[in-house]
Amino acid sequence: MPDSSSKYSSSKLWGGRFSEQTAASVEAFTASIHFDARLYRHDITGSMAHAKMLARQGLITGEERDQIIKGLDSIGKEIESGAFVFRPELEDIHMNIEKALIEKIGPAGEKLHTARSRNDQISLDIRLYLREETYRITDLLTGLQKSFVRTARKYLGAIMPGYTHLQRAQPVLVSHHMLAYYEMFGRDKERLFDCLKRINIMPLGSAALAGTGLPVDRDFVARELDFPAITANSMDKVGDRDFAVEFVSACTLIQIHLSRLSEELVLWSSDEFSFVNLADSYCTGSSIMPQKKNPDIPELIRGKSGRVTGNLISLITMLKGLPLTYNRDLQEDKEPIFDTADTVSHSLAIMAELLDNLEFNLEILQNRVKTGFMTATDLADYLVLKQIPFRKAHSIVGRAVAHCLDNGKDLSELTLDELKGFSSVIEDDIFSLLTVKGSVDSRQSAGGTSIKSVKQALSEAEKILELKP
Amino acid sequence: MPDSSSKYSSSKLWGGRFSEQTAASVEAFTASIHFDARLYRHDITGSMAHAKMLARQGLITGEERDQIIKGLDSIGKEIESGAFVFRPELEDIHMNIEKALIEKIGPAGEKLHTARSRNDQISLDIRLYLREETYRITDLLTGLQKSFVRTARKYLGAIMPGYTHLQRAQPVLVSHHMLAYYEMFGRDKERLFDCLKRINIMPLGSAALAGTGLPVDRDFVARELDFPAITANSMDKVGDRDFAVEFVSACTLIQIHLSRLSEELVLWSSDEFSFVNLADSYCTGSSIMPQKKNPDIPELIRGKSGRVTGNLISLITMLKGLPLTYNRDLQEDKEPIFDTADTVSHSLAIMAELLDNLEFNLEILQNRVKTGFMTATDLADYLVLKQIPFRKAHSIVGRAVAHCLDNGKDLSELTLDELKGFSSVIEDDIFSLLTVKGSVDSRQSAGGTSIKSVKQALSEAEKILELKP
Amino acid sequence: MPDSSSKYSSSKLWGGRFSEQTAASVEAFTASIHFDARLYRHDITGSMAHAKMLARQGLITGEERDQIIKGLDSIGKEIESGAFVFRPELEDIHMNIEKALIEKIGPAGEKLHTARSRNDQISLDIRLYLREETYRITDLLTGLQKSFVRTARKYLGAIMPGYTHLQRAQPVLVSHHMLAYYEMFGRDKERLFDCLKRINIMPLGSAALAGTGLPVDRDFVARELDFPAITANSMDKVGDRDFAVEFVSACTLIQIHLSRLSEELVLWSSDEFSFVNLADSYCTGSSIMPQKKNPDIPELIRGKSGRVTGNLISLITMLKGLPLTYNRDLQEDKEPIFDTADTVSHSLAIMAELLDNLEFNLEILQNRVKTGFMTATDLADYLVLKQIPFRKAHSIVGRAVAHCLDNGKDLSELTLDELKGFSSVIEDDIFSLLTVKGSVDSRQSAGGTSIKSVKQALSEAEKILELKP
Amino acid sequence: MPDSSSKYSSSKLWGGRFSEQTAASVEAFTASIHFDARLYRHDITGSMAHAKMLARQGLITGEERDQIIKGLDSIGKEIESGAFVFRPELEDIHMNIEKALIEKIGPAGEKLHTARSRNDQISLDIRLYLREETYRITDLLTGLQKSFVRTARKYLGAIMPGYTHLQRAQPVLVSHHMLAYYEMFGRDKERLFDCLKRINIMPLGSAALAGTGLPVDRDFVARELDFPAITANSMDKVGDRDFAVEFVSACTLIQIHLSRLSEELVLWSSDEFSFVNLADSYCTGSSIMPQKKNPDIPELIRGKSGRVTGNLISLITMLKGLPLTYNRDLQEDKEPIFDTADTVSHSLAIMAELLDNLEFNLEILQNRVKTGFMTATDLADYLVLKQIPFRKAHSIVGRAVAHCLDNGKDLSELTLDELKGFSSVIEDDIFSLLTVKGSVDSRQSAGGTSIKSVKQALSEAEKILELKP
Repeated sequence: MPDSSSKYSSSKLWGGRFSEQTAASVEAFTASIHFDARLYRHDITGSMAHAKMLARQGLITGEERDQIIKGLDSIGKEIESGAFVFRPELEDIHMNIEKALIEKIGPAGEKLHTARSRNDQISLDIRLYLREETYRITDLLTGLQKSFVRTARKYLGAIMPGYTHLQRAQPVLVSHHMLAYYEMFGRDKERLFDCLKRINIMPLGSAALAGTGLPVDRDFVARELDFPAITANSMDKVGDRDFAVEFVSACTLIQIHLSRLSEELVLWSSDEFSFVNLADSYCTGSSIMPQKKNPDIPELIRGKSGRVTGNLISLITMLKGLPLTYNRDLQEDKEPIFDTADTVSHSLAIMAELLDNLEFNLEILQNRVKTGFMTATDLADYLVLKQIPFRKAHSIVGRAVAHCLDNGKDLSELTLDELKGFSSVIEDDIFSLLTVKGSVDSRQSAGGTSIKSVKQALSEAEKILELKP
Repeated sequence: MPDSSSKYSSSKLWGGRFSEQTAASVEAFTASIHFDARLYRHDITGSMAHAKMLARQGLITGEERDQIIKGLDSIGKEIESGAFVFRPELEDIHMNIEKALIEKIGPAGEKLHTARSRNDQISLDIRLYLREETYRITDLLTGLQKSFVRTARKYLGAIMPGYTHLQRAQPVLVSHHMLAYYEMFGRDKERLFDCLKRINIMPLGSAALAGTGLPVDRDFVARELDFPAITANSMDKVGDRDFAVEFVSACTLIQIHLSRLSEELVLWSSDEFSFVNLADSYCTGSSIMPQKKNPDIPELIRGKSGRVTGNLISLITMLKGLPLTYNRDLQEDKEPIFDTADTVSHSLAIMAELLDNLEFNLEILQNRVKTGFMTATDLADYLVLKQIPFRKAHSIVGRAVAHCLDNGKDLSELTLDELKGFSSVIEDDIFSLLTVKGSVDSRQSAGGTSIKSVKQALSEAEKILELKP
Repeated sequence: MPDSSSKYSSSKLWGGRFSEQTAASVEAFTASIHFDARLYRHDITGSMAHAKMLARQGLITGEERDQIIKGLDSIGKEIESGAFVFRPELEDIHMNIEKALIEKIGPAGEKLHTARSRNDQISLDIRLYLREETYRITDLLTGLQKSFVRTARKYLGAIMPGYTHLQRAQPVLVSHHMLAYYEMFGRDKERLFDCLKRINIMPLGSAALAGTGLPVDRDFVARELDFPAITANSMDKVGDRDFAVEFVSACTLIQIHLSRLSEELVLWSSDEFSFVNLADSYCTGSSIMPQKKNPDIPELIRGKSGRVTGNLISLITMLKGLPLTYNRDLQEDKEPIFDTADTVSHSLAIMAELLDNLEFNLEILQNRVKTGFMTATDLADYLVLKQIPFRKAHSIVGRAVAHCLDNGKDLSELTLDELKGFSSVIEDDIFSLLTVKGSVDSRQSAGGTSIKSVKQALSEAEKILELKP
Repeated sequence: MPDSSSKYSSSKLWGGRFSEQTAASVEAFTASIHFDARLYRHDITGSMAHAKMLARQGLITGEERDQIIKGLDSIGKEIESGAFVFRPELEDIHMNIEKALIEKIGPAGEKLHTARSRNDQISLDIRLYLREETYRITDLLTGLQKSFVRTARKYLGAIMPGYTHLQRAQPVLVSHHMLAYYEMFGRDKERLFDCLKRINIMPLGSAALAGTGLPVDRDFVARELDFPAITANSMDKVGDRDFAVEFVSACTLIQIHLSRLSEELVLWSSDEFSFVNLADSYCTGSSIMPQKKNPDIPELIRGKSGRVTGNLISLITMLKGLPLTYNRDLQEDKEPIFDTADTVSHSLAIMAELLDNLEFNLEILQNRVKTGFMTATDLADYLVLKQIPFRKAHSIVGRAVAHCLDNGKDLSELTLDELKGFSSVIEDDIFSLLTVKGSVDSRQSAGGTSIKSVKQALSEAEKILELKP
């Protein structure tokens, strides 16, 4: 072997052509093992399937395949037990495992990387990871939906103020409010399942960027790893992190939904609202004010919407302006993905617990719906049914409200004569309508808050979630 | 009518209860008519369907319905012709049209707002708008895909350097590179169509937030407006802008993809690369340097990725921490949505034009693939097929490259003897492999860059796009 | 003149070397005149100073200078009056004005662009614009601070609940709360003035990117335009938009501050809090619910925090990964800058109006501070002064609170005997301390809520703002 | 002590009033000790100063003060040595240290939290941390500036193409290009120092939110901790994270600047540009392609601009819509701050190393400036000096360039006759101007690229940085 014997010989698996050792600062700066070690299971699973394929295609022997699989299995166990020592100078999880395999089983280990690149591997590993996380998060979404449905069932019939602009607007069923969140988090599941279609495609076989000249069988690997399809273009695949952006984007909406729910829980547990009691075990106190009991969980969840939105921006900014195929910038994809999956999972799990430990103060809710002219729309609708054009009806009721404000009364406290002063068509059938219960019961449009509509929505939700009423 | 006669009487359609006139500064600050006027067609379409439903349910007469429809139709024409005068003090498109209708047809016009709210209307209008835009953008994506496929067909057989880390890596077909973008923009279409499932749901009938007590038929309206489903929960619906976030998120990925493509076009049209010529008619010059011809289009498109990402953040930030149902914050949804749809549409359209006016400099491409040791992986794969474990093979080739660098040669310029010095298994069948064409042809794995794989991918794409080869 | 006579002759001021006409779609896509027309005053001001310098340096005659200045002046007036016709095919405000000047005054006009580039001009124009906006916004910040200080003076002595975690914590002066915002918006001013140091540097003279070979006098231009310094490196300057990012970043914090204030105003005007009344003229109603009076202004301002944050991201994303000097991406800087300056200005102005029209419900505030164990910390501090370690004191009070909760009492309702049951050191001097007023008065630490501390802070603020108490 | 004896007794330092144990899931979700442990030094420093003040004010004895300081000192050492066991159930660094202190020194430890809250402590700790980081990062910025200045000195006289739109524009000195970055990173320092004014304010003494009733001396603490000022309003202070947003915002610009530099380094080390050689020790290889040497460092740094921008968005989103004072959302501030400081520090440090190990390929640079009509502006300026209006001159040169393109020549290759064909004023003094060196030398405007201007800028930079030429 000519002329390079006297030179520095790199210990890197890729170091053949290099004549200087990698600077220590460079190793520290570029290493990803401190965060991608988390992908060890997916890396090993992928390598096992790859080895089976190599053997099937005659690129390694059956014996070599068995050695590789046994070696990988034992490395997996070492990692799980904590016995495995990760080496930053080996950069990433792929190289750490491959090097350990070579040390363990010798030459057969040196064949594992045949017909694949790390660009392949990391794309596969992230897809396997995100597939798992998608199922985990959709399960957690289902869990949270169940909490809402149980709460809706528990409080069926209870009425609370409905707000727009945080001003009391119309009375609604507590259960209707709960089912609004059931719908919202249901959309999040749909979105994740749609995203899964684009995650769940097998990338291995693209090699560095151009495909491989060795006779691989990509469909076999896909079947082994339970992927319904393989990626269609090697250059596209190697630089594609769209599925990660889409996953984090769907998660951002989940966390934003949680922030809206959290805002309501913080409001509702304030002294002014006092709509709910959070269990002591779900609150914390103050280091200085002995009387405090704080809704830390919803506050933190609300705050974490910043974190997930930040992760989304990290990924998008990372991708902006990158030429095709692999650029090292893409290494920055993993931490935002991991942090997003963790944040959203933990937030969903604890929010479901919190809801299961939440008590509504029914007496307070009952008192709050009595004021605020919340049946004003009902009066307007009444006039409409008496043939008064809606705009006129709206104006008539507006004046009646102004009159009430001036005189410190509620609409339901006006006499029939007073009411007739605003519109002569008003009869005494109006009074049942101006009650809160009458108002709620009337909203029988599909998706409305009447007990009838809500019962139907609740039953459907219970059926879908396989919950017993 | 008691006691409010002496008071200020608001001219607002909602002003009944108000005792002071809205401050002019407030009207200016809260008005949305300068941007939501754009939704006039959708607002009118929705109102017509609503009027038909009202008549069908007996809430207005057939005659009133006809008056309303005729009136709306004529308002639509006035707006189109520019004759219609928008009035900021009427706040938004809904109120401007309703007021004009009342002025035009009298009492029947005052009945149009029966059983609906502006919260309903705006949700409907945006959904109608985004449904249209989704179809428009997916058509433009198809158009851009066609440009790539045509270019791939035109240059079939031409070879260019493939890069990773912007370093020459392996030779690839120009067509393979083009088809990578075909795939990328194909995913964007899928994503938009998935989003459409959540846009395409009919919201009308939720009224303010609780549903309506009047006997509406929401399914009829859905059929009239060609929606496959109706929203399930009135409180959820009224504050839901998830579909807008999802739409803008999908568009952000499109614009990021365009930024990657633009980066390549800027690189390729630099003097150093000189891979492509942009037509004079697609470039602009410098006000000071007479010789300049600048790739402004891709630069601007790349820059516009900031704009769309900004819009995404605007929407997400707007939603963070909002309580359920409608809050006025939501008015801030429209400008980012409009700007996103416009930016992405214009960028896609002009990018397709640009591609259709692009010439690859084949001679230059041909020269560039000759250097850079781009067949080094082929040599390694050759050794693998001769039973040398891949890691050893990689190392052997690495040393051969180092040797070449020291001696100013390319791999293909080494003699068989020299090559044998690195590994005795090398025979003279190696030389055909070390050619660029040999390298490209070898990558016959599915999705790889061999002419065979690319031809197949190209034919499939042409079939899907209904393009003749 | 050889051989280009038969060719297409571009009408563009930069078109000499071009052999094809710019595509109409390209003109439409690249034109910026529809938004940068807004910079016409700054462009003209800059050009006048430039012309004076050219004359001073002998590059044009005094007569030419006068023609140019007169021409520019008259163009400025035409633009102001609306008579000027902007032409998109001339791309931007610079070319529109230059072309109009040439048409108006002939050859002298063709000399204006001597020794400068549009890269120069746009940098100058934006700096002039942002300098103005900085002064405008800092004035508006001062205006808002005045509203807070006036409100603080007006309600001096009134007590309200202070919150942490939106749970009642300790009683505070309304004025103390107002002065918190005075501080917050004061920081915003500081930040803008710091940013101004980097805006306020004269860029002209960098020419395309390398400086100019013509004998310009950059310092003269700086003096003419009231810039304290000139930019130091032509290549840096031409691609520098840092000052714009910094400006928008400072504005984002302003809008975030406004969102916090808006959140409080929305809460305070809810039925549950009822801390404040917003004037009718600063609210709007509902199209469907006749009783509604909504806090639209703070909601919209809160929502607009999304808009400004989005603008910040647009600029940052635009800059990411750009090579040095001018790239066309930078054209995307203007709309986010303009929109930010407008949004923040309008929000500040109307928020000051809103505050000036705000009434606190003192009776309600007074009632709310009576409950919630808001003097618990005072009891703990009392124990500390009696030599009980704080941690013990905290624990003792915690148990007393638990006892009160179990028995439906407030701390101040416990008898001395009951109190002694928790700690024998408690004497009857405790009762004055457990009053709300006693609690507030005690917090005499600098920056605390005691009337003494607040009066001092208020007087200082009034002095700084030159307000009479 | 009445009636709470039979109840659960919380082990929390704040648990007096709580009747249920904190759920384990809540402890896990809310704990911050896994990231805020990092602030232990700052927390201890702050507590020591606080204890000194308490003693000075007679709130604790001198002996207690000494016990506390000794105890804290020993805890600090235990943490440094790794012997300290952090307990998640104690939530955060403050409680971990306080509890350990109490266990170590008994009752005196229970007095440390007198007259302060964790809201106080964390504000102080972050400010101390950010003050340190600001100095560290500004030092690193200085280091990077030195690398640019040394490189500028080293290559003084060497000419390279200057680009706009990534098209060759005008020849510039390598040193001029380097000094552009010197300026850019200099602005970053200014910005950080401005931010420091708002970081460097002592917050302790605000207590929970209202100030404290105990006789503290805030100015003493400020002097002890070397703060030039104390915060002015307790309610503002407790919820203020503006300084953190401003710090991260300034850091985002740094990282964006690094992304621009990185983009250039990636371009320059591509085969097409080949402007620079990165040292082997600062590159890494490919797991599959034996010949690859990749510019991983600049790619990663460029990618990390996403990370820092994401952190900025996290903080802004977190703050949006929060009511005044402390809300638990604010706990989410620390990870983005830490990650930003780390990312920017590491990136700056390694970038300086990389620059110090960079070689420009002068021969290649020299060849590249010969083409691209880079002296076209010089020809136009020449015509201007011959009294041809600039616009005419520009047009003449444009046509000359078109002529050259048609005939495959450069401007400098035209004969005087040919040149005169474009304008009769051209004489043979033109030829020295059309040389690259002539072009560079001519740009003597302040901040221009002439050797004279650059030498002056370089000398000033060396003086400021105290570097020897």
